[in-house]
Amino acid sequence: MFQSFELNVVRNVQLRIERLRIEMARVGLDGFLVPHGSEHQGTCMPPLNAQRLIWLTGFTGSSGIALILKDKAIIFIDGRYTLQVRQQTDATIFSYENLPSTSPAIWLEHHGAGLKIGFDAWLHTISETLCLRNALDTVGGHLIEVEKNLVDIIWDGRPNAPIGQVTLQPIEFTGRTAQEKLSEMQEAITAAGASATILTDPSSVSWCFNIRGRDIANTPLPLSFAILSVRNKPQLFIDQRKLGENETIYLQKLCNILEPTKLEESVQHLAQSGEVILLDPSLTAERLRSITEKSGGKIKEGVDPSLLPRAIKTQAELTGMRKAHKRDGVSLVRFFAWLAHQKPGAQDEISTAQKLEEFRSQIAETTNSKLEDIAFNTISGTGPNGAIIHYQVNTKTNRPLMNGELYLVDSGAQYRDGTTDVTRTIAIGDVEEEKKRCFTLVLKGMIAISIACFPKGTRGQDIDALARIALWKNGFDYIHSTGHGVGSFLSVHEGPQILSRFGKQELLSGMIVSNEPGYYRDNSFGIRIENLLVVQEAKTPTGGDLPMLSFETLTLCPVDRNLILSELLSEEECNWLNDYHDTVYRTLSPMLNETDRKWLAQASAPLDH
Amino acid sequence: MFQSFELNVVRNVQLRIERLRIEMARVGLDGFLVPHGSEHQGTCMPPLNAQRLIWLTGFTGSSGIALILKDKAIIFIDGRYTLQVRQQTDATIFSYENLPSTSPAIWLEHHGAGLKIGFDAWLHTISETLCLRNALDTVGGHLIEVEKNLVDIIWDGRPNAPIGQVTLQPIEFTGRTAQEKLSEMQEAITAAGASATILTDPSSVSWCFNIRGRDIANTPLPLSFAILSVRNKPQLFIDQRKLGENETIYLQKLCNILEPTKLEESVQHLAQSGEVILLDPSLTAERLRSITEKSGGKIKEGVDPSLLPRAIKTQAELTGMRKAHKRDGVSLVRFFAWLAHQKPGAQDEISTAQKLEEFRSQIAETTNSKLEDIAFNTISGTGPNGAIIHYQVNTKTNRPLMNGELYLVDSGAQYRDGTTDVTRTIAIGDVEEEKKRCFTLVLKGMIAISIACFPKGTRGQDIDALARIALWKNGFDYIHSTGHGVGSFLSVHEGPQILSRFGKQELLSGMIVSNEPGYYRDNSFGIRIENLLVVQEAKTPTGGDLPMLSFETLTLCPVDRNLILSELLSEEECNWLNDYHDTVYRTLSPMLNETDRKWLAQASAPLDH
Repeated sequence: MFQSFELNVVRNVQLRIERLRIEMARVGLDGFLVPHGSEHQGTCMPPLNAQRLIWLTGFTGSSGIALILKDKAIIFIDGRYTLQVRQQTDATIFSYENLPSTSPAIWLEHHGAGLKIGFDAWLHTISETLCLRNALDTVGGHLIEVEKNLVDIIWDGRPNAPIGQVTLQPIEFTGRTAQEKLSEMQEAITAAGASATILTDPSSVSWCFNIRGRDIANTPLPLSFAILSVRNKPQLFIDQRKLGENETIYLQKLCNILEPTKLEESVQHLAQSGEVILLDPSLTAERLRSITEKSGGKIKEGVDPSLLPRAIKTQAELTGMRKAHKRDGVSLVRFFAWLAHQKPGAQDEISTAQKLEEFRSQIAETTNSKLEDIAFNTISGTGPNGAIIHYQVNTKTNRPLMNGELYLVDSGAQYRDGTTDVTRTIAIGDVEEEKKRCFTLVLKGMIAISIACFPKGTRGQDIDALARIALWKNGFDYIHSTGHGVGSFLSVHEGPQILSRFGKQELLSGMIVSNEPGYYRDNSFGIRIENLLVVQEAKTPTGGDLPMLSFETLTLCPVDRNLILSELLSEEECNWLNDYHDTVYRTLSPMLNETDRKWLAQASAPLDH
Repeated sequence: MFQSFELNVVRNVQLRIERLRIEMARVGLDGFLVPHGSEHQGTCMPPLNAQRLIWLTGFTGSSGIALILKDKAIIFIDGRYTLQVRQQTDATIFSYENLPSTSPAIWLEHHGAGLKIGFDAWLHTISETLCLRNALDTVGGHLIEVEKNLVDIIWDGRPNAPIGQVTLQPIEFTGRTAQEKLSEMQEAITAAGASATILTDPSSVSWCFNIRGRDIANTPLPLSFAILSVRNKPQLFIDQRKLGENETIYLQKLCNILEPTKLEESVQHLAQSGEVILLDPSLTAERLRSITEKSGGKIKEGVDPSLLPRAIKTQAELTGMRKAHKRDGVSLVRFFAWLAHQKPGAQDEISTAQKLEEFRSQIAETTNSKLEDIAFNTISGTGPNGAIIHYQVNTKTNRPLMNGELYLVDSGAQYRDGTTDVTRTIAIGDVEEEKKRCFTLVLKGMIAISIACFPKGTRGQDIDALARIALWKNGFDYIHSTGHGVGSFLSVHEGPQILSRFGKQELLSGMIVSNEPGYYRDNSFGIRIENLLVVQEAKTPTGGDLPMLSFETLTLCPVDRNLILSELLSEEECNWLNDYHDTVYRTLSPMLNETDRKWLAQASAPLDH
């Protein structure tokens, strides 16, 4: 099992905070910042040795930051984690502030007069650091870089950095060689007005070099950095214990391989050689900026040049994604068919999540593939737990799936040929009308995105409302984005495209986005329905006069017909659902056993309108 | 008649350009900028004495700028005017560039190396000037402020500045006294971190002081400036010949009245007295910034503080708008009833526009009101002319309304109690199916906005796509915004709210927006359907859990049933249209004569679905 359901309780938090305060006093600081991220930033879960926020506070959310002061300790969390942070941490030790309305910078601008606040410049981006520094400057405070992270000093038994084996991602799955990508990067660096760049996001490094790794949970990345230069051979900074002989030979042809400890020195050298260095201020550690600056280097701020080309999938990647989704669809059908035969109350959130992972693993093996990992911890929530958007079941919160409840399961798989992410909400036994009404409204939003067609130039923010208008008309909404980008055997969350009111990136043919509207009634039930989509060139309808884009649906799994009030669907919506179910059946049935096929035939039967 | 249909031909353009070049040489300039706007900026048509761009080039569009160089003359226009500028100006004298992909700043950054470019700092905003200066700095050019506008020097017979009479806008129509507004402005200035502001937009001045004027066509504004200060009495800069005795007495209680020629001196004084002056960089003339700076004043950049409160209408303003729309509805019904009785070919674009203005004027008189002005020149276009989005008919382009054509009429009125803006597209005789299909798709978009419901915090850009999705699915779109704000007996275009992909302003209860999707097939036909809407608190639907906003429709005029393919409408859309028509009939019929009532009964009869 990739997923653990044990309750992760951190003990001795009070003691750890006290020891941290002693260290703060020793180096003359009034406060110290402990962010969630590692020196690679990003929103992936950091490796064990970088989970300082968890170790210090017990809070395991996927983002957040603590500010430890002499007489106060604050955890800043966003709206997803307001409940969880209170469950996991001790309110007699911590107080809580909400991001983004408050942030350490905003808080310090109000309360930080004259304070000396320490920070580890490897763990904060250039942008974050600028905000913090400006805030403290305004009130006569000081932001002070520490030489060694104070948490690391007091962390007895801190794990070593991971050394997961690196694998090569073959051309069959990537569609482009690393040489091609690296040469495109050189052009992009030049176009950005620079002559070199430092890649600090392991997703960018993995994509450029066509490698994958096993350093962190759920995302097949090797922790690594790279320097790409217009004039010189790329430099890859990676612990060489992660490389087998083949991988070393492959990489040596592409780049010079160096230990991560050599990065600072190499950046100094690069800066001194007069290169103009492109740094992404929202991805790059402040430490790399300050080294560059101190060494007299020229900095050009701009977006990581691999971000956009990585988001636009090649034909090979799309073929892989389609295969991965067929395999995943077979697993999902087996899972829902199995669940349909369980009596209400017989299964619980953990047993179902385990079963789903087990089926995914089995089906992968029987289809010449392998479940490399789950793409994230399965959100398996029934009844009121379904209303917790980022719910992570553990042995303490586990609930049986009871008659009348909605069961929400959001899960994904990492296969070599593609990454999946799918949510279905199903009825357990007999469900009241009101839940069906809400489900149907969510479904209308999900269909509105599925059938959308839009001119080139349309951004995620331009179409987000299509997923919400049916809910809005009934006085409902959901507080998360409608959809995110998805990597190709990389992170299940990837930019720059996003379907939300903040999605400024134009949607381009070949981009993958999730389509996952929802509705959550606190302490009662939660609904989310999620498919992955590919942006594609639309056939211009007869008589149309503009080139248009539309979506191809990747995910293959029926939507629970028991929860649909078909009288609330328009004919167009009903037709889409029937066509989709027909496609699911035709595509998956040849791969199913008799039992599963029978179940699917019934689950995908056309709805009357 | 307010509208003139004469073709405005400017002669001697070549000679004027040559004389301008002589002036340029005299003061040592390589180029000179001639923008559309006056010292009040904005998009209103400037007064005659400030129509320098028209006088110099012949181009009458509502925005644009000319750059006259020694051996080249360029007119920069946006997409609306690419055709018109070529029709109105001589391509042997001018070349053309498209805004915003090119602009004088962008052009000069490429071609302005070493050039000395003159400009009148009264006619360019702070933001524009900054762009121009940065562009020229980059290439070693110079932006040079002229003491007197070079066009004014060579403009023989230049008209005097207008001295239209000022009127008071009573509390019955404004709902708030000028004292209340001016005191709110003081709070807003303080909240913006300043202690004074200079209002340069006559709409802002008119709104603050509850005055109106007659200086320019279509918009009842007195050209004027004001200085508002937290500590001192407001100063109003206005030609006192515009003020009658009553107006003078009224205004003297509120402020000190000064001649506009005193503005520069007063700003110098203000700057020297140590005030922090709030200037809106996108509305304020560069001249005012530079005076402030030279006098050692402190500048705080920020939005004109009257912009947002002006956009949120009072109950009195909304009551006035509703009354204005009833009166306007009666005129529209009389117009369309009259037109329905004309044989195809019997009327033309000018005769119809004249008739509409005549009916508006008559109906206003019989309802204790007065047509103070038209809100803009009526867009009256049939057949291919309907496809020209900002078409202005003149005696040369005038076409008869022929059988089979779509006739598009976009018009508005200025009444003391409110401003209207309405577009209808109707069938002349028998119209082919394809035009009906396109009309119905536009109608679907217009209905989608009319019935939209959305959470507080929603911005114009969040709902714009609702108006477009039906068109998009058929390969169509329109290149203008879906809707703009509308003033209350002020400019028919007003910010900050806008329904478009760039509409970042949150929609707030009491704001008025137009709802005007369209479709235009070049050289063939044009369709636009436009109602005005008020943002209002929605009744939260039964079972809903969020406070929502929705729209109240102000405009009362039937949509041409002959153009609707009802099988393309959903039940919800059909119900909305039938309800709307029912409201139009019930509201207007008591005010109609027998003939018009009969016509309306038939024009507003329910559609079958």
